Amino acid sequence: MSLVDPIGQLFLRLEGRNQPMHVAGLQVCDVPAGAGPDYVRNLVARMRDITDVQPPFNQRLRMRLGTAFWTPDTAMDMDYHVRHLALPEPGAIRDLLALVSMLHGALLDRSRPLWETTVIEGVTGNRFAVYTKFHHAMMDGVSAMRLIGRYLNDTPDADTLYVPWHAPRTPRKPRRGGLVRSLAAGAKQIHGLPGVAHALGINRQDAKYDGDYTGPAEAPACMLNKAISGSRRVAAQGYDMARIRRVATAHDVTINDVVLAMCATALRHYLLDNDALPHKPLIALVPVSLHGKDSEAGNRVAVIYANLATHIADPAERLHTIARSVDYWKRRYKRLSSDQIMTFTGALSAAAGLNLLSGLWPTKQAFNVVISNIPGPKEARYFGDAPMQGMYPVSIVLDGQALNISLVSYDDSLEFGLIACRQSLPSMQNLLRYLDDALNELGAPATEAPSAT
Amino acid sequence: MSLVDPIGQLFLRLEGRNQPMHVAGLQVCDVPAGAGPDYVRNLVARMRDITDVQPPFNQRLRMRLGTAFWTPDTAMDMDYHVRHLALPEPGAIRDLLALVSMLHGALLDRSRPLWETTVIEGVTGNRFAVYTKFHHAMMDGVSAMRLIGRYLNDTPDADTLYVPWHAPRTPRKPRRGGLVRSLAAGAKQIHGLPGVAHALGINRQDAKYDGDYTGPAEAPACMLNKAISGSRRVAAQGYDMARIRRVATAHDVTINDVVLAMCATALRHYLLDNDALPHKPLIALVPVSLHGKDSEAGNRVAVIYANLATHIADPAERLHTIARSVDYWKRRYKRLSSDQIMTFTGALSAAAGLNLLSGLWPTKQAFNVVISNIPGPKEARYFGDAPMQGMYPVSIVLDGQALNISLVSYDDSLEFGLIACRQSLPSMQNLLRYLDDALNELGAPATEAPSAT
Repeated sequence: MSLVDPIGQLFLRLEGRNQPMHVAGLQVCDVPAGAGPDYVRNLVARMRDITDVQPPFNQRLRMRLGTAFWTPDTAMDMDYHVRHLALPEPGAIRDLLALVSMLHGALLDRSRPLWETTVIEGVTGNRFAVYTKFHHAMMDGVSAMRLIGRYLNDTPDADTLYVPWHAPRTPRKPRRGGLVRSLAAGAKQIHGLPGVAHALGINRQDAKYDGDYTGPAEAPACMLNKAISGSRRVAAQGYDMARIRRVATAHDVTINDVVLAMCATALRHYLLDNDALPHKPLIALVPVSLHGKDSEAGNRVAVIYANLATHIADPAERLHTIARSVDYWKRRYKRLSSDQIMTFTGALSAAAGLNLLSGLWPTKQAFNVVISNIPGPKEARYFGDAPMQGMYPVSIVLDGQALNISLVSYDDSLEFGLIACRQSLPSMQNLLRYLDDALNELGAPATEAPSAT
Repeated sequence: MSLVDPIGQLFLRLEGRNQPMHVAGLQVCDVPAGAGPDYVRNLVARMRDITDVQPPFNQRLRMRLGTAFWTPDTAMDMDYHVRHLALPEPGAIRDLLALVSMLHGALLDRSRPLWETTVIEGVTGNRFAVYTKFHHAMMDGVSAMRLIGRYLNDTPDADTLYVPWHAPRTPRKPRRGGLVRSLAAGAKQIHGLPGVAHALGINRQDAKYDGDYTGPAEAPACMLNKAISGSRRVAAQGYDMARIRRVATAHDVTINDVVLAMCATALRHYLLDNDALPHKPLIALVPVSLHGKDSEAGNRVAVIYANLATHIADPAERLHTIARSVDYWKRRYKRLSSDQIMTFTGALSAAAGLNLLSGLWPTKQAFNVVISNIPGPKEARYFGDAPMQGMYPVSIVLDGQALNISLVSYDDSLEFGLIACRQSLPSMQNLLRYLDDALNELGAPATEAPSAT
């Protein structure tokens, strides 16, 4: 029996019927050419037969004096954990996302290991989908992505089938790093609290003097920040990385800056549609991973607060304002070790981000939306012999945070997964179109159709 | 805004992540001969277009000082309430029940009217299913069945499509009564509390002197009466009413006595399999409806406690013991009006049944299992032009009540719907086979295959 880590304890405590605290990945795969009509059914049977379940997938919760512990489940019911569904003909992506919205709205059974995999056959274009949902107390997004890096095949191989709950022990290929990795890697190794205290001091000064500084407690009131209901809308789409790279090069900013500008533009359009654009810019909380090279389980995350410049009408000016605000945090974090960044984030967020997480409504809104970007596999991957066409993250919304935007990079595509409270944010799926518009506005029109519409 | 009735308030308060308090009906229909491949998709579209939603289906909850009220929802999202799924090929009933188990395990969204309908296409034999789930605070089983009597067609009619949330105002055909109806109808109309007090006095005496008496607080400890998890197993099957009638005639007992004997036999076999048969007989709580002819919404139910005689090995002796214990309650209730029966039941159950419902674990087990039998349509019915082949109730399990058996009569078939906590009662679906064995043992072997295996 082992203690659930502190962030995991918090996720468990915050969970309620309107606020499930699980995350998920949605993978869309091609049925291999020449496969028979029983291909997916046989695949599900093979998955259920993989009963040597590795941690943390074999761990269930046990409560002791109000504290959660992990304990191995010795009698797992694989028929329960691995489900098999189908879309009605013709299996439109719209129907797939409606099904995923429904699945994502349901709480996990706490008497079992906190995960479920649903294999969905009949996706248009001879495809199938695998929706895997797990509790955030079990793993964070970066850990999940590393796991995906381990269990998928580099080449189509019908004889080698790994699954999230039974993966080879070591990654098969190195992965590229994102914003996150470079922050942690570039951090100078100055240990101890003085560095943190110094950084907090700088932070207080910058709030007064540095125009690029965006901190907590500066976000405007917004329709994104309502109490949520129990029902969800999930939207997902892939965008060609080459287009995003073209914009980054043309404007001399990073890929991540462009991603934030895409989100900012889409949100600006959506809020204008709803006659709800605040005069002040929206603030995005962007989690950054502090994982070392090999750590996988548990939660190890710091945050930056990005100014989304949604009040600025000019697309290029908006992009550069965003880039400057991200740059501010990079400069700050360069001076700190990853442990110090976590402590610093904790200190900042104690008065802002985490009082939201802990269920206390902040008197000042700390941020308007969470945007997280997790690096995924750089080359094509295969689930057994089935080519994975796309993978989309499905995250969490909270009271006061009715929208979450998560991204995963995969095989020269950037896969956006959006989740919202279906009641607070009507027709949220329009954001997908506006994300595309954003790239057009910044001078990178689409040369091919998006990968999943 | 109107107050939720007291039993409804209780259902709402008792609800938790491991203990959803919704019930459901599962209907299996034939796709009409000659229908095109888009038949079910078009049906779903037509259902979603029925936006004139009648009470209670247009009512959502509103909490005021810890008390629940109903208030009309003026912006219903029909895409949310009416879902469209499919079974993977070949659409086995086993897969249908696995899907229904999953759907039934998920909580309803309390910010919306408390119901969902899922149309499931691709059921083997060119059939489709309609699973409609609603909160027990909204309606009881008898009310739901009356509604079904109103919205289904008597003849196949493609142009006339009614749905639970929009039904014609009056029933189209009279329905037959069950045990329940005859109890309420036969009750003498003696008003006032003295009758109840007298009945309670008799009850206390009978506990000492009447061998047929079975009251609360006599049930043995049993594996059926464990704490439950959040996951469910649903099993359903129809049994030919002619077989049941043959047994009733041969043994000179009622249809309801035979039904209870079927359950008793199945439970005896199942508990023997699990080496868990108590020495004392299991006690079933059998709800009886006190609905007048026209009442539909709300909850109006009394109970009897039936001795299931599971300790008796001889099938015929078991049946007659059950019949005598039911007869005891019939004699008692004959002396009371329906209002008095409710008061009497309340007084009895205050110390027994309802302390379980209210979440207090009883020091003595009041009963082991709930078995409810609700009369349904006597002749074949049609959903639009689709012949309804079977309809199965899906009920509730509670902490301490890990199994529920519900029955509906329909078109000369008796449709059993079983629901259990999947973790407390492994392989619960074996009960279906044992129900069939029970009829064989009592001298009515099957002459045709059961209607849904």
